[in-house]
Amino acid sequence: MRFVHDSLPQRVCFGTGEAGPNVQREVGRLGASRVMVISSLREAPRADKITADVPVALRHHDVAMHVPVDVADRAREAAAKEDVDVVVAIGGGSTTGLAKAIALTSGVPVIAVPTTYAGSEATAVWGLTSGDVKTTGTDAKVLPRVVVYDAALTVSLPAEMSVASGLNALAHCVDSLWAPNADPINAAFAAEGIRALAAGLPAVVAEPSGIPGREHVLYAAYVSAVAFASAGSALHHKICHVLGGKYNLPHAQTHATVLPYVLAFNGPSAPEAQARIASAFAAASLGAGSALEGLQVLRAALPVPRALRDYGLTEADIPAAAEAILPAVPPSNPRPVTAADLERLLQAAWAGDDPREFA
Amino acid sequence: MRFVHDSLPQRVCFGTGEAGPNVQREVGRLGASRVMVISSLREAPRADKITADVPVALRHHDVAMHVPVDVADRAREAAAKEDVDVVVAIGGGSTTGLAKAIALTSGVPVIAVPTTYAGSEATAVWGLTSGDVKTTGTDAKVLPRVVVYDAALTVSLPAEMSVASGLNALAHCVDSLWAPNADPINAAFAAEGIRALAAGLPAVVAEPSGIPGREHVLYAAYVSAVAFASAGSALHHKICHVLGGKYNLPHAQTHATVLPYVLAFNGPSAPEAQARIASAFAAASLGAGSALEGLQVLRAALPVPRALRDYGLTEADIPAAAEAILPAVPPSNPRPVTAADLERLLQAAWAGDDPREFA
Repeated sequence: MRFVHDSLPQRVCFGTGEAGPNVQREVGRLGASRVMVISSLREAPRADKITADVPVALRHHDVAMHVPVDVADRAREAAAKEDVDVVVAIGGGSTTGLAKAIALTSGVPVIAVPTTYAGSEATAVWGLTSGDVKTTGTDAKVLPRVVVYDAALTVSLPAEMSVASGLNALAHCVDSLWAPNADPINAAFAAEGIRALAAGLPAVVAEPSGIPGREHVLYAAYVSAVAFASAGSALHHKICHVLGGKYNLPHAQTHATVLPYVLAFNGPSAPEAQARIASAFAAASLGAGSALEGLQVLRAALPVPRALRDYGLTEADIPAAAEAILPAVPPSNPRPVTAADLERLLQAAWAGDDPREFA
Repeated sequence: MRFVHDSLPQRVCFGTGEAGPNVQREVGRLGASRVMVISSLREAPRADKITADVPVALRHHDVAMHVPVDVADRAREAAAKEDVDVVVAIGGGSTTGLAKAIALTSGVPVIAVPTTYAGSEATAVWGLTSGDVKTTGTDAKVLPRVVVYDAALTVSLPAEMSVASGLNALAHCVDSLWAPNADPINAAFAAEGIRALAAGLPAVVAEPSGIPGREHVLYAAYVSAVAFASAGSALHHKICHVLGGKYNLPHAQTHATVLPYVLAFNGPSAPEAQARIASAFAAASLGAGSALEGLQVLRAALPVPRALRDYGLTEADIPAAAEAILPAVPPSNPRPVTAADLERLLQAAWAGDDPREFA
């Protein structure tokens, strides 16, 4: 057992239907009196309601995906002009990302109120784009001081998008177990995320407006992001990154399809990780045996894609894809990886073969 | 799901045999150049070795149990006189406690190097005593910035003391599941602590100088303290507090004896907590079924006490003890508690009855 783990300071307020009072209380605790509220225009009515009882200096709706630098600069100028002393960000990853951009240069504290399962609110990672170029970094200043989770705000997310996002969170958990900074604390968060996703996702599919399932998935999005941000990116994410970037495969579907093959490949070489996963699925009463079995039982309960061939990858792409992935494989991977291994893995995922028969 | 959880900022460096280089690196990261090293006189040779390569301004050995105010004041004056910019505390709870007392009034950061399983290094709780009066409080300033864990430093702890201390940590985990601030994040830490203790304690008993068992118990001491400090004290600790304070029963033995009865009493009314405990024991391959079964299988593998009658409690004390405990029972307890319940519980623990037959 050998690791260095940094626990980040963050306050999480979790309560369904309580975003308004929780935001009000937390603004007060921070001693803030000039609040900047960020939300997309679409989310504005909801944001107005949540912040009805706080001293708003500025409502800002100029939000865009991937936080373009000019969007960030306009938000920073508006914040400075109004001399705001807290930013309340209500929305998904783009909204949280814009608040982080303000915090990065001004140090103004952020209260995040996530309305999706993106997880950005749980990390100190910021990102800005300029044209096609994305710059990312990590800075303690951008970690939201407070996260206000209200599962009622996620009920309007369609079940299918929720499942895709939830499986992305699941991939964060699984991959963090063999990531470069894998450690037992990250593993405990990852196992907790798997347990909550395994309990929550089938419930969301069965009843998209049901609160207990939404609460589980929202909570899981948080703990998975904590685990992943600390552990770093591993084999699964390296594969999906190449498939998305080079072949333009859809993000969520790619994650959902590739994960069982990575688990089948790495699992036997990572017995502790495998046991953690199996035990987390078992804690949610999913899967009586192995990690892979738990994952497959969960997938069977969800509307998930099965084969990369259905999403635009051609069989002829596989060798070049494998070559592109190989240099990105982290040295922490529990099993050595060759180009031939990656080809076999991609071939199986492309065809949608039974992952138990691969590896 | 409704909770407020504060994650505290702390860096944990875990590495067996690496306390020296880890302390050196972390002193450098804090930019410190005038180090105060605190250890008991008995620990001084070890402390000298660990801090051989850091710029020591002052070595302080005036340490006493429960941090008497005059001991704290002398340490604070010495720190101020030497203008120290970091305190490195090498030792058990009293040593860490003294460093916290300095941090409380000066804000100087602390690097804790624990040599026992006390867990104080993981909390923002400070304590000072003046005569018989103990004052405690919580302050972010006293939370050690860095904890350097080195399991080699714990090998000299006798197995029996390690077991007592480990069972105390186990009680922290179990009790935190129904404590006033119980929440799923605390529960995840608690479950992780149970898993690691169930894996580590039998290994320490089987081979007291073996490193893997020591690593598990030391790591468990950390995660249990995180869970307990955040969740607060519950039924089990209230019972043990009265038995220790009013009847002078020995701390560790009392915890070890009482825990199964509290679990038998509360468990059926706290199905989620019970499932967490069972699953954590199962993850360590202990106990095929219930939480209580897992605990009893673990206890059977350890040299633990079985009955309060062996530690000075008389049967005649029971009614008054129950009366004294009753007002302290937290409203969060999953099952209503009457004086008669407490008498039954104490009677069973006094006699060492099978906890499965009680409750």
